[in-house]
Amino acid sequence: MLGARRLLGALRLCSSVSCPRPRASAKLRVRDALGVQDASGECVTVQGWIRSVRSQKEVLFLHVNDGSSLESLQVVADSNFDSRELAFGSSVQVQGQLVKSLSKRQNVELKAEKIEVIGNCEAKAFPIKYKERHPLEYLRQYPHLRCRTNTLGSILRVRSEATAAIHSYFKDNGFVHIHTPVITSNDCEGAGELFQVEPSSKMKVPEENFFNVPAFLTVSGQLHLEVMSGAFTQVFTFGPTFRAENSQSRRHLAEFYMVEAEISFVESLQDLMQVMEELFKAATEMVLSNCPEDVELCHKFIAPGQKDRLEHMLKNNFLIMSYTEAVEILKQASQNFTFTPKWGVDLQTEHEKYLVKHCGNIPVFVINYPLALKPFYMRDNEDGPQHTVAAVDLLVPGVGELFGGSLREERYHILEQRLARYSGLTKAYQWYLDLRQFGSVPHGGFGMGFERYLQCILGVDNIKDVIPFPRFTHSCLL
Amino acid sequence: MLGARRLLGALRLCSSVSCPRPRASAKLRVRDALGVQDASGECVTVQGWIRSVRSQKEVLFLHVNDGSSLESLQVVADSNFDSRELAFGSSVQVQGQLVKSLSKRQNVELKAEKIEVIGNCEAKAFPIKYKERHPLEYLRQYPHLRCRTNTLGSILRVRSEATAAIHSYFKDNGFVHIHTPVITSNDCEGAGELFQVEPSSKMKVPEENFFNVPAFLTVSGQLHLEVMSGAFTQVFTFGPTFRAENSQSRRHLAEFYMVEAEISFVESLQDLMQVMEELFKAATEMVLSNCPEDVELCHKFIAPGQKDRLEHMLKNNFLIMSYTEAVEILKQASQNFTFTPKWGVDLQTEHEKYLVKHCGNIPVFVINYPLALKPFYMRDNEDGPQHTVAAVDLLVPGVGELFGGSLREERYHILEQRLARYSGLTKAYQWYLDLRQFGSVPHGGFGMGFERYLQCILGVDNIKDVIPFPRFTHSCLL
Repeated sequence: MLGARRLLGALRLCSSVSCPRPRASAKLRVRDALGVQDASGECVTVQGWIRSVRSQKEVLFLHVNDGSSLESLQVVADSNFDSRELAFGSSVQVQGQLVKSLSKRQNVELKAEKIEVIGNCEAKAFPIKYKERHPLEYLRQYPHLRCRTNTLGSILRVRSEATAAIHSYFKDNGFVHIHTPVITSNDCEGAGELFQVEPSSKMKVPEENFFNVPAFLTVSGQLHLEVMSGAFTQVFTFGPTFRAENSQSRRHLAEFYMVEAEISFVESLQDLMQVMEELFKAATEMVLSNCPEDVELCHKFIAPGQKDRLEHMLKNNFLIMSYTEAVEILKQASQNFTFTPKWGVDLQTEHEKYLVKHCGNIPVFVINYPLALKPFYMRDNEDGPQHTVAAVDLLVPGVGELFGGSLREERYHILEQRLARYSGLTKAYQWYLDLRQFGSVPHGGFGMGFERYLQCILGVDNIKDVIPFPRFTHSCLL
Repeated sequence: MLGARRLLGALRLCSSVSCPRPRASAKLRVRDALGVQDASGECVTVQGWIRSVRSQKEVLFLHVNDGSSLESLQVVADSNFDSRELAFGSSVQVQGQLVKSLSKRQNVELKAEKIEVIGNCEAKAFPIKYKERHPLEYLRQYPHLRCRTNTLGSILRVRSEATAAIHSYFKDNGFVHIHTPVITSNDCEGAGELFQVEPSSKMKVPEENFFNVPAFLTVSGQLHLEVMSGAFTQVFTFGPTFRAENSQSRRHLAEFYMVEAEISFVESLQDLMQVMEELFKAATEMVLSNCPEDVELCHKFIAPGQKDRLEHMLKNNFLIMSYTEAVEILKQASQNFTFTPKWGVDLQTEHEKYLVKHCGNIPVFVINYPLALKPFYMRDNEDGPQHTVAAVDLLVPGVGELFGGSLREERYHILEQRLARYSGLTKAYQWYLDLRQFGSVPHGGFGMGFERYLQCILGVDNIKDVIPFPRFTHSCLL
């Protein structure tokens, strides 16, 4: 299957002769077959699953998909082939000649000479029905089969492309990739309830710990990235993070992916915001250019209007407002909020939504939050009378908070004082203080929820539909 | 920091004029500064940490490193600068003119006009001492500081490059990237003891499960990749996997990374072995070409002779032998083994080492293992009298088993029978059987231990030195 283009080139050389039946022909991915310009009877073999069957008097049309693209390859066969065996969902191997299609709907088609059914698919028992567009909620019941639908296929290809795009953005800009640990002994970052980890045989003897200390699933790679930012000026991580929260919301999962970056020698939130905006735009442009059909499918069937909303986000400069300004805007709003906006209190989802709308649906950075609302590591702005820290959240249409970041407190004594306020933390975080004792630098970073990013660009309403195997309270299928 | 090359280009245009002190100069990464050809007095600012200080009568030499490369930038300053503040490990910002170096040891150097100490580093308390080459065991005590040494810096840059190389190998060959879940309810793949996961508040009420069922940290993404291989013909994952084993060995960790791939429509182990060998060689060539100095450092100081051993692996075709042949070779060996080699018994590390040596230190695939030794999902070779499955391990010099893979049992009834033998599994794995009921295809895949891969190419003896934050029994620092 590898090196298909080279194979096809070689085949071309002998394609004027007709295709001798028993000869092994080149295996081609559907995506590569569809991309062939001026097909002229090359002998190829295509393997995949039947997405549709249409039997006419003289001919039989099949559409074969192998997941390499949304589009399937049209196979045209003699009506002698027994179409009863060629059921929706069955896997097949088709050998034949790649020819120009007479129809305008596709560029090439495969004139079948041999169709072999590899694995049957019994229509009655198969939860995915031919020609039906199943709601996403229905498909969620079948995490092992839903990837065989067009919609989930497209979403997962976009997820794969977006992953690659994010890695390549960071690589191209000189960031070092770090695998921050999943299991950690840091337990007090204040980011919601934690999952604890022990060998299954020791679950009933909680006084003994495998790691000698209680160990948890990470809620963020930030502190570990900060370690690395004392040696590499630009680092990033892209891995799973966890929250043990009892939430069934369309925006939360117990296991989700975060893209996190940490940059040394930054001195203002401006530097961070520039990277966040660039990352968002560069990754999205790359996805749009690498899998336009998959994105289009979502924009067409899942979220009509999303195409325009996304273009609007991409072509405008993101906006910036302070938390204090945001609260003022909310106070003056004609809308009645469930939670009354007030300085010193967290913004709620309803507030975030209002702010984004207020900004004409352009993503907006909200900066400089009250010190009392934020964790110990955020850099003190030393302002007054309303004491703030250099924190930043990016709010985007539809999703709300997409990025969160801050400058970190790099000054030993200020950090020490703040840790001391949380009794006991100074000892547990001595290593974190050490980072400020030995060649400390001003630094900052951010995290982006990867699933929320996918929801944002595709317009997918429920976070459970943009991750292959969603985990949340009461549910861990497979 | 971003777009440094563009900035430098613009600077060039005005570099004939002398550098006016108060003007902001272009920030340049050390790597980019070192790469400048024909430096001619461009005004630049470089930020990083001091790796060495040498004070002469008239001049002061500093080496500044920012983690973008192993090599540091030489800074030449007037001896008027107070060298007492310029201590090893301190962070500095240096502004000056980039000029050709008179010495042959470097291409360019930075003629300092302004040196600003950003963060002091107190030599006495700093566990990393100037001009000392600390043993890796010593550095392991300081996971938050060891990245500031040349050796760990190089290893972590190689790790980052290898990660990128592996992603790019798969992307270039049409594989779809899948984030397989970390938390799973599959508990019986037989891969050692599992970590169980519950919210920390519920650790003492084991009868209640957050996910309704007991949930574990994954030991492999294989089964989930198999789900995806029913829709995409080529998929891969690259993420953390876990074993709760009580091992302090130099080859095992409780948390480590696996690169796993699954390919549909493969019919022989040959197809799989080709991909494994290509992946190993392509990724390694990419690493060698992208960070030769970092690899060289390891080959020079950590594992003398490793350069030749690696070249030997890269230039030879990997060998193939059956498990049965391997046992015969071991039986005929003059060496005395602790475990007597015998058909039907697992190969031990001592056996693996012998086999690799027997093969002239060329990596060797061992195929077709006894059915009784392998898990239920491996494809039955239906041979006799010695009943085997289509499994494959790749053994490499120094490390032993690097890859493990197999064809999977795609035939519904054979799989059902094998599951039934493990009482109770048929129900738990109904979803896995489903995959064979709806358009089943012959498929197979493999996993490669990423840390072992790094050990293999760099010659690093202890697995704890190739991962940023090692986790193993009794240890979960940070």
